[in-house]
Amino acid sequence: MNKRGFASDNNSGVHPAILNAINNCNNGHVTGYGIDHYTQEAIQEFKKRFGSNSDVYFVFNGTGANVLAISTLAQSFNSVICPSTAHIMVDECGAPEKMSGCKLIPVNTPDGKLTPELIKPHLHGFDFEHHAQPKIISISQVTEMGTLYTVDEIKAITSLAHEYDMYVHMDGARIANAAVTLNLPFKAFTVDAGIDALSFGGTKNGMMMGEAVLFFNKNLSVNTKYMRKQSGQLFSKMRFVAAQFLAYFENDLWKKNATHANQMAALLSKRAKELDVQITQKVEANGVFAILDNEFSEKLLQEYFFYPWDENRHEVRWMTSFDTASDDVNHFCDKLKELLNA
Amino acid sequence: MNKRGFASDNNSGVHPAILNAINNCNNGHVTGYGIDHYTQEAIQEFKKRFGSNSDVYFVFNGTGANVLAISTLAQSFNSVICPSTAHIMVDECGAPEKMSGCKLIPVNTPDGKLTPELIKPHLHGFDFEHHAQPKIISISQVTEMGTLYTVDEIKAITSLAHEYDMYVHMDGARIANAAVTLNLPFKAFTVDAGIDALSFGGTKNGMMMGEAVLFFNKNLSVNTKYMRKQSGQLFSKMRFVAAQFLAYFENDLWKKNATHANQMAALLSKRAKELDVQITQKVEANGVFAILDNEFSEKLLQEYFFYPWDENRHEVRWMTSFDTASDDVNHFCDKLKELLNA
Amino acid sequence: MNKRGFASDNNSGVHPAILNAINNCNNGHVTGYGIDHYTQEAIQEFKKRFGSNSDVYFVFNGTGANVLAISTLAQSFNSVICPSTAHIMVDECGAPEKMSGCKLIPVNTPDGKLTPELIKPHLHGFDFEHHAQPKIISISQVTEMGTLYTVDEIKAITSLAHEYDMYVHMDGARIANAAVTLNLPFKAFTVDAGIDALSFGGTKNGMMMGEAVLFFNKNLSVNTKYMRKQSGQLFSKMRFVAAQFLAYFENDLWKKNATHANQMAALLSKRAKELDVQITQKVEANGVFAILDNEFSEKLLQEYFFYPWDENRHEVRWMTSFDTASDDVNHFCDKLKELLNA
Amino acid sequence: MNKRGFASDNNSGVHPAILNAINNCNNGHVTGYGIDHYTQEAIQEFKKRFGSNSDVYFVFNGTGANVLAISTLAQSFNSVICPSTAHIMVDECGAPEKMSGCKLIPVNTPDGKLTPELIKPHLHGFDFEHHAQPKIISISQVTEMGTLYTVDEIKAITSLAHEYDMYVHMDGARIANAAVTLNLPFKAFTVDAGIDALSFGGTKNGMMMGEAVLFFNKNLSVNTKYMRKQSGQLFSKMRFVAAQFLAYFENDLWKKNATHANQMAALLSKRAKELDVQITQKVEANGVFAILDNEFSEKLLQEYFFYPWDENRHEVRWMTSFDTASDDVNHFCDKLKELLNA
Repeated sequence: MNKRGFASDNNSGVHPAILNAINNCNNGHVTGYGIDHYTQEAIQEFKKRFGSNSDVYFVFNGTGANVLAISTLAQSFNSVICPSTAHIMVDECGAPEKMSGCKLIPVNTPDGKLTPELIKPHLHGFDFEHHAQPKIISISQVTEMGTLYTVDEIKAITSLAHEYDMYVHMDGARIANAAVTLNLPFKAFTVDAGIDALSFGGTKNGMMMGEAVLFFNKNLSVNTKYMRKQSGQLFSKMRFVAAQFLAYFENDLWKKNATHANQMAALLSKRAKELDVQITQKVEANGVFAILDNEFSEKLLQEYFFYPWDENRHEVRWMTSFDTASDDVNHFCDKLKELLNA
Repeated sequence: MNKRGFASDNNSGVHPAILNAINNCNNGHVTGYGIDHYTQEAIQEFKKRFGSNSDVYFVFNGTGANVLAISTLAQSFNSVICPSTAHIMVDECGAPEKMSGCKLIPVNTPDGKLTPELIKPHLHGFDFEHHAQPKIISISQVTEMGTLYTVDEIKAITSLAHEYDMYVHMDGARIANAAVTLNLPFKAFTVDAGIDALSFGGTKNGMMMGEAVLFFNKNLSVNTKYMRKQSGQLFSKMRFVAAQFLAYFENDLWKKNATHANQMAALLSKRAKELDVQITQKVEANGVFAILDNEFSEKLLQEYFFYPWDENRHEVRWMTSFDTASDDVNHFCDKLKELLNA
Repeated sequence: MNKRGFASDNNSGVHPAILNAINNCNNGHVTGYGIDHYTQEAIQEFKKRFGSNSDVYFVFNGTGANVLAISTLAQSFNSVICPSTAHIMVDECGAPEKMSGCKLIPVNTPDGKLTPELIKPHLHGFDFEHHAQPKIISISQVTEMGTLYTVDEIKAITSLAHEYDMYVHMDGARIANAAVTLNLPFKAFTVDAGIDALSFGGTKNGMMMGEAVLFFNKNLSVNTKYMRKQSGQLFSKMRFVAAQFLAYFENDLWKKNATHANQMAALLSKRAKELDVQITQKVEANGVFAILDNEFSEKLLQEYFFYPWDENRHEVRWMTSFDTASDDVNHFCDKLKELLNA
Repeated sequence: MNKRGFASDNNSGVHPAILNAINNCNNGHVTGYGIDHYTQEAIQEFKKRFGSNSDVYFVFNGTGANVLAISTLAQSFNSVICPSTAHIMVDECGAPEKMSGCKLIPVNTPDGKLTPELIKPHLHGFDFEHHAQPKIISISQVTEMGTLYTVDEIKAITSLAHEYDMYVHMDGARIANAAVTLNLPFKAFTVDAGIDALSFGGTKNGMMMGEAVLFFNKNLSVNTKYMRKQSGQLFSKMRFVAAQFLAYFENDLWKKNATHANQMAALLSKRAKELDVQITQKVEANGVFAILDNEFSEKLLQEYFFYPWDENRHEVRWMTSFDTASDDVNHFCDKLKELLNA
């Protein structure tokens, strides 16, 4: 029996409806590499949600998606401005730099969110060949700190970017969790808010694997298919990703999963606050950041797995998932209460 | 209903036993990125077959596997000698060059197979900084032409390579089909024949996706884990690849699948020869190369999908798979007979 | 006293008029990185010769020039078709692959020259994402075999390229030697013959260092200045390259130097033929390729330095230079005669 | 007549003794690419100053030098920690990322100087494949802010680095100016202070062009010669860089030049302070950073060229050089006085 926990939303398995779709598409021969009707239908589902001008590319994982977006939008002499906590900055082993050649400019933020004020000091050196040319602003929605951008906050960033002939990329590894909290269709806070390219994640919300990269202006992505292949992200038996996305959108499975995960984080946060545990970031999606002394962490870890976030300040991260049970949360918090009161 | 054909062994779906394993491992939480017992067990299965010194890395696909092998064995100023028909040369959109920085040196061959005689003219310029330094010889087993290396042929190449302080990489996208024809354990024609790194493919023989890269000297691969992550080939929910490999090895499923595919190719080749169709390469695995006038090809393509290989000489490629039915072959050949006799 | 020889045209020093120009421009302060009047004037001299649409970039050396041209014309998923003897293929330690990400497709030729017939078999796989997309044909004028393309031969290649939406790059490391033999202005066999980008070399014809990269359609090179900086090829004290080019063009110094070098090669070839030495390539510029038994080579090398070319067939290469004296040639041939008759 | 100024030490020309050396080495044929006695002697001069274990590579410029050092010390999955003002971070158009693949981690500093305290928060994630592995700490001596590290400050950084199995690279574009102020031999604050690799600059102190990259442990640099060639930094007529270095070291020309430049900066700083101009950084070498209202800057720029540094706070940078005359400084300050008092 595998041990449950709050380590990461990718420690969960696959939602049964997704697995079912995988099983059901295992039917005879189809042409590889996306020339199959499952893939074409899945692309249509994306177009329904993001507009018919969307250009959609399926890849294996989030790093592959982010690199493909950056490589499409920028050339090697460009730079990418991102929060210092961004996944592309700290969690991809330098993949963006290696594969796109671009420089990453990390910006310190209190909450994982860029703002025009934080971005502006880095908007200089244009046309000056000594300076990597700023071309992309990359934001994560949900951020790596579990926080959210409002539509207006996103528009403020995309307006600034477009004024400078730059693009905005959104790392949407947890975009479903954002859509649920914002209570908005995907389109409202992406293409309609000026986003140019989106990494749309499914793995952290109940899919087995598979991400989509969307470009909202087809002129940008005329060569993306070559870049996907050259970066090792073209799946031969593509139907097995496409079928997952079809199931993910059917009956709004994505929304059910994300709603549940968010509720579990809210419950966890509420109960932790009742125990006077300091929660360090707004809980707007499925992540809870808390301060917890090492002695308590160590004992909790014996029953539930989770990760330290900032060891200097004893900050830990608890992630909930589509399959987190309220019993998991309650038992975890009971245990925490027991420790704190001991 | 999906149309069947002989286009590629990756047009097939997934063997039921593999799907079953995927379904069965979908059980609660496990740590991501390979820190789970399925992955550890799958690695043990590889070590049983390739020796305990094997260092095993799971990746998403063949391009990812080949790039990881090359990046591990060579630096950017090195060159890779390969047949001009090699997958790394013609079918990966330049991924090896882009991601490793290495130069590829294509060598013309009659049958997709390198020999010491073909390699030797390229073994020069050592220590001369103007010349990309030869470091890897890459061979495919089965070759892209459907042919096989004997153990002695492999040993002749690895001996030559090691004499020059070079490494030999084997692209084993169809290694199961080779093992079946050679009637040898994997080890006999890889590590025991002097191979240094192997891309071990499963996708073309009934898996959904997933390849393994094996290094037979752990000193070579001390940094491979970083390279896998940086190249976008680290799967978060790794158990779903690992479980496939476990099923692939269980009860020698790999062997059953490959045996069947090879038999179907032999049948197809035999029947085609009876029709006086010219078969251009030895049929040693699951590929059949034939000369066929365009008018016949076009008509056949209406019923079964397959690819042209060398349009200048009207050469076509017919691939069989683990799920090719003898009825497929027979009906296809009946149709061919009908066309040729018309 | 330094030993003279026929090893390479870069074993010579610098023509006195070039040195003089370097000395004369060493006058007070000018802005760095090309924002100086020497650089602006030198660019004008290029425009006079190549047309006002030329976009001109000075770099340090030939590898830097070729890489900048390729990086400007192609993206990483493209391929570059070139003779198997091309400098970019065999003499730049893989710089083009590493720095542009492109695949190089070497084509065997009898004389270092591509032809449409040799190129055509490689013009396939367009729009097919598995195949590196052919985008550049790179030819050397003079070739590395000392041979020349006629204007018609160049036009045949550029027409073919443009038909396929491809570009033609000319490696003009020895372009002066070509212009002299063809007895044509530079423009006639470059921009007017359809060439898209040119590496214009001066170092091998009496300059100290410095090459120019020219693009004949400014739309192509809008980002080249960033690529030059990012590839480490932007000279801070640019005036010292620019002044060399000014002197190189003044009074047609380039022509005098190249004429002399070509004459010396003609003399060397003529005398060698009189000694029944087999000359393996047409002598159209300043290189002579000959078959010479090792015993003779070894003895000659005691007095004059030169390089073996193809050791398997005992082929050697003798290069002449702007400063080769007819006494050098005559004494060398006298010595050769003595050895052959011994 | 070229306009003088305080824009950059690379706006100066070449010291006459350096030019003289260039003229004098223009003597007949020598083998290219550094196989000549000038180069061998120049390397010996470096070894005299840095120890016989030094491995020395000449390159064209500072970007080439820094990239070669980084590429030698690190692999693509590594990161380089540097001040946010470092030349490699802001002035090389992303060359380090593109050419080495490494991630750069910029650290904010008050004065362009790293300290162990500033570095330590970035020393984490070792062995964790998601995180670019910290491998190099890069410091500039003199810094881009005109400040200096003491020997003890350097040792504190190198000790920390070596404790973590990391290397320290020094960007010594202005190393001569540092040696003069510290009044120490080069060795004392480089190899003897634990530095692993050094970019040794000459261009900013009176040379025409040419930098040297030094490695103090030859095991590190076994492949550096290939990397130099592959990065386009191998000079064919190498003697013309080597001769410059020979003249640079002869009679301590480097010291005379740097002493003068530093004195001119001290004079400029002293006179500016007397005018109550705010000097923002310690003046320890040949750079002066000052706060100056735009109206004054604009008028001063009509006579002398210099660059804004931080436009938000009206900070400007004034660089002196080996050929800055005290009359330049005095006239500039007279003019400044006149403006401020107007």
